[in-house]
Amino acid sequence: MKLLEQRIRSQGIVKPGGVLKVDAFLNHQMDVALFDEMGAEWKRLFAGVPINKILTIEASGIGIACVAAQHFGVPVVFAKKAKSVNIDGEVWATKIESFTHKRVYDVIVSKKYLGPQDHVLIIDDFLANGCALEGLLRIVRAAGAVVEGVGIAVEKGFQRGGELIRAQGVRVESLAIVEHMDAQTGEIEFRHAGQESVLEASVHA
Amino acid sequence: MKLLEQRIRSQGIVKPGGVLKVDAFLNHQMDVALFDEMGAEWKRLFAGVPINKILTIEASGIGIACVAAQHFGVPVVFAKKAKSVNIDGEVWATKIESFTHKRVYDVIVSKKYLGPQDHVLIIDDFLANGCALEGLLRIVRAAGAVVEGVGIAVEKGFQRGGELIRAQGVRVESLAIVEHMDAQTGEIEFRHAGQESVLEASVHA
Repeated sequence: MKLLEQRIRSQGIVKPGGVLKVDAFLNHQMDVALFDEMGAEWKRLFAGVPINKILTIEASGIGIACVAAQHFGVPVVFAKKAKSVNIDGEVWATKIESFTHKRVYDVIVSKKYLGPQDHVLIIDDFLANGCALEGLLRIVRAAGAVVEGVGIAVEKGFQRGGELIRAQGVRVESLAIVEHMDAQTGEIEFRHAGQESVLEASVHA
Repeated sequence: MKLLEQRIRSQGIVKPGGVLKVDAFLNHQMDVALFDEMGAEWKRLFAGVPINKILTIEASGIGIACVAAQHFGVPVVFAKKAKSVNIDGEVWATKIESFTHKRVYDVIVSKKYLGPQDHVLIIDDFLANGCALEGLLRIVRAAGAVVEGVGIAVEKGFQRGGELIRAQGVRVESLAIVEHMDAQTGEIEFRHAGQESVLEASVHA
């Protein structure tokens, strides 16, 4: 998605260690007009797919998921990190390792809001090693719901998450795939449709 | 706001200890069409007020704030709980006590996204004892920004938060004010415009 790539180029900051900061518009300050365009793009990509619920995870996925959900006319459920005393009854639960925060979270979704009747689009801001997404997929499958697809804002194509999850047959639509980035020059290269990933290229080489 | 009161009556669950669960539509599963109506109502209430930024706090305020922000045409900034290694540079910081989670959080906003140029509408899902809102107000004031008002979805009128914050001269627009609720009968009473609060009535008695 050109609009998102342009924003990442103009406002994203590449840091050492494979860190891409997009907190000017995506996950601290949030440009809701951009989110609206992103929602329209996912709706176009998943046209005709019988999605009745969007699942995301706190915190930075929530804003994107809620604005996008308006295009699908469906509710959003967000997976909560750590058990709140205000969540009662039974929950679907899993553990997710966060490399950003260097800890393991318990992640839960109330059984009241996710079940076998649900056809789920998972939305999140980032896909890197795929730990968060794998956790959400485990929760959807435990609930007996159908994963209709995954919408990601920014995928780090140089990490394994996207490859691992697509290999399971899950449809992942990332609106921007960063193929390579350089913390010294600030340069960012994106992968486009039909282009072999650096990961595939390294396997074929 | 009648629509929100109706949803609280039909789907809210009153629990012992002053707990009102609205996770069917507000803070776990999220009805984005309802959020859109709430955003329209805040826009009507704050018509003509020069708001250029919406501030909220993770996690459950984010969805409401993002959908509401579309009515104002402004970006959202969410205050983050605990320091993330991905937040760099200087931050506005404060501590907020959560009675729900029985702990104290460090809450931060990057100085890049909140400053003296900002006219801020604070949005959150709940107002009870006011600890979270007081923390956000401290952050806005520390930044030298102007608090133009506060939009709350559900205020617990039987707790002191709303009273304390309005007494500071801050305009607080709560779309539903629960005046009384009964965990045994499930009954919920709302306060309406011009009505003396139970707290005021107890002072005057």
